[in-house]
Amino acid sequence: MKKTVNVAIMGIGTVGGGTYEILTKNHDFLLRTQGIDFQVSKVLDKNIDRIRYFGIPENKAAATVDEIAADKSIDIVVETMGGVEPAKTFIEKVLLSGKNVVTANKELISKHWPALEAAAKKGGAGLYFEASCVGGVPIIRALQEGLQANHITSLVGIINGTTNYILTKMTEEGMSYDDALKEAQQLGYAEFNPTSDVEGFDVAYKLSILASLAFHTCVPYQMIHREGITKISKADIKAGLELGYRIKLLAIGKRKGNEIEVRVHPTFVPAAHPLASVGGSFNAVYVNGDYVDDLMFYGRGAGARPTGSAIVSDIVYAAKASGPVYSDFENNGQKADDIVIASDFSSKYYMSISVKDVPGVLAAVTGVFARHSVSIESVSQRSFGSGAAIVFLTHTASESDIMAAVEDIEDLDDTNKVESLIRVLA
Amino acid sequence: MKKTVNVAIMGIGTVGGGTYEILTKNHDFLLRTQGIDFQVSKVLDKNIDRIRYFGIPENKAAATVDEIAADKSIDIVVETMGGVEPAKTFIEKVLLSGKNVVTANKELISKHWPALEAAAKKGGAGLYFEASCVGGVPIIRALQEGLQANHITSLVGIINGTTNYILTKMTEEGMSYDDALKEAQQLGYAEFNPTSDVEGFDVAYKLSILASLAFHTCVPYQMIHREGITKISKADIKAGLELGYRIKLLAIGKRKGNEIEVRVHPTFVPAAHPLASVGGSFNAVYVNGDYVDDLMFYGRGAGARPTGSAIVSDIVYAAKASGPVYSDFENNGQKADDIVIASDFSSKYYMSISVKDVPGVLAAVTGVFARHSVSIESVSQRSFGSGAAIVFLTHTASESDIMAAVEDIEDLDDTNKVESLIRVLA
Repeated sequence: MKKTVNVAIMGIGTVGGGTYEILTKNHDFLLRTQGIDFQVSKVLDKNIDRIRYFGIPENKAAATVDEIAADKSIDIVVETMGGVEPAKTFIEKVLLSGKNVVTANKELISKHWPALEAAAKKGGAGLYFEASCVGGVPIIRALQEGLQANHITSLVGIINGTTNYILTKMTEEGMSYDDALKEAQQLGYAEFNPTSDVEGFDVAYKLSILASLAFHTCVPYQMIHREGITKISKADIKAGLELGYRIKLLAIGKRKGNEIEVRVHPTFVPAAHPLASVGGSFNAVYVNGDYVDDLMFYGRGAGARPTGSAIVSDIVYAAKASGPVYSDFENNGQKADDIVIASDFSSKYYMSISVKDVPGVLAAVTGVFARHSVSIESVSQRSFGSGAAIVFLTHTASESDIMAAVEDIEDLDDTNKVESLIRVLA
Repeated sequence: MKKTVNVAIMGIGTVGGGTYEILTKNHDFLLRTQGIDFQVSKVLDKNIDRIRYFGIPENKAAATVDEIAADKSIDIVVETMGGVEPAKTFIEKVLLSGKNVVTANKELISKHWPALEAAAKKGGAGLYFEASCVGGVPIIRALQEGLQANHITSLVGIINGTTNYILTKMTEEGMSYDDALKEAQQLGYAEFNPTSDVEGFDVAYKLSILASLAFHTCVPYQMIHREGITKISKADIKAGLELGYRIKLLAIGKRKGNEIEVRVHPTFVPAAHPLASVGGSFNAVYVNGDYVDDLMFYGRGAGARPTGSAIVSDIVYAAKASGPVYSDFENNGQKADDIVIASDFSSKYYMSISVKDVPGVLAAVTGVFARHSVSIESVSQRSFGSGAAIVFLTHTASESDIMAAVEDIEDLDDTNKVESLIRVLA
């Protein structure tokens, strides 16, 4: 039953190097347990030092992607370059040459999935991207191969390790956002330019992929409501803890009928919810299906070894597959055109308002809420010096009503500003 | 691409009925998302009332298993009868007739896996059993299709909802074991004869399956060290809580080289461990792999709908598979003969000893520990009336040393009894 499968790796950075390490160090293990003799026969990286760093024989270095595309002995090509270009061009070339592609590139998949799938179909090749979401956690396999019986009703995840590390540090050690970010950068958890992580782009890319698979319909990342964590203050974290919440940057996908709600924003999570205790750089995805009920998948969301684990899982999967499988959203009765991505959504809200400490201000603010049909669960007011702060927890309300209320509240004579508005996971 | 797949269901109880419900209610959904028109064409149950109860047309009722085996239009047979016989005979018949079998029967798989796989091979059919372990949680798919890159080093699970419900009630509401069991029985979480659950047999069956898959080698359930929860007292639970532990019935599988450690016993789990907060009838499996690091899979471990979800997942999987895949333990270089199932293992221990309140007793007990190389992490002594209780937490020690120490401690003049000995998850 033994068969040899030749693999090429494009991009020998941390993750590409980790993938090479697994395929070589666990070579005999994979041969014994999977019946496949995996050989890394070519690697591609413009920097030969990186190839040397991982101890890869230099005669495996390909000069160009065309050399890989033209090599008929290669079955599977791993893309671990990251970014959109030249990764997209390279992947399309090897797909068109009929080679299966395994990629960890969430940005590319979320932005160009249809184009890549078209190239895969044209070449008769498969496109695999388990490693693009939630590192080593086999969440894509679970959605595609383990939960097919279910209409997924919701998918709520902590799917960015950088922001979870920062928020955990702020929560557990009272650090400021700036200090926690600096520490994350020093430890290599955050990039020098942290925008993609802290502004929620990375989460939106992943949510676009996961929601598309969960809801069997293409969910473009541009349609995801996205807010990052840069405005979260120590005061917000403290207020949340006092109310029994931990703040998390959540990716939320919900489906009601043909309406899909997709959003990324900081959220107060009740301390008893399984997601609340997902700390540090760990990730987790909480899924509900109509038959399976609640599930949670927890693990390392990033890093060379966990991401390499997911890539090699896809390599084995592709090597054993009877043929490529496509998402085929356009052929399963739900074109992208048919989706209604909800422009509005409902949530519970935490709102902190700085006001003048004068009679009648609470009445004025609650009057605004009443006019916008926002019902209040609890309220507390605290005076300090010349001013005061009023903190509200609302019952479930619509985002549009809340936003209208915020505007009207800030227009009142005796209010200063809505200092914080944080959604609360119900 | 649409293809019709005919399914037969043997055993129309809760889970078989749930499977029928999913295949009919989600028929169009499965057709659209999976491209397969699933038809339940035959059902088998000696009780026609149960077939009627689930609204299954009576003309689908088969008279015998032979009728199903002989029906060339049937592709997949679901076995939801439970127990060893006649399920084993029935499954072998349909496997030999070349039909794929999907089963939720953990007892049968753990006791007769090799025989069933032999029948499957002979018939050229596949044998699928995702539903046998941890209900709706796709843990078998994760081990087989998501974590192939990894040597699994440990697998620790709460995989029995009945006992977890009982222990949760004892922990959170201070109920006695008997009262919690009674409540579980009233709610249908525990059987009238609860032995299989509370004595750990059910957990051992599942651990045998999960450990075999995780460690790529057949782990017979008879070789699993097994203890149930019937001896756990309110005092144990209270003592654990005071020390920061929650008690859970754990299934533990660990691998070091070719040595496998498999055991089922009540365990003190540190409150901060993700498994500690898995409450009520929820299940979870905590897995560590050499590349992926720590993972946890959490969800409903039982019930018609979650188990039905797993069965239908297997049905879809089998319908799309290019051909059957066998565990093939005997062909992958690690025969059952080669396994060393460790007879001993190491753990931290909690030990409570009732003693006479006389001088020298602590010195005598600690002397015994020293002679057996058991190192003490903490000790506390409490007097009451004429006696006293000494409570120890040990550092990691071997089970055999601890057991020898228990014997010697009980032989001391001034000790009465080792009242509790509970292993502590490190």
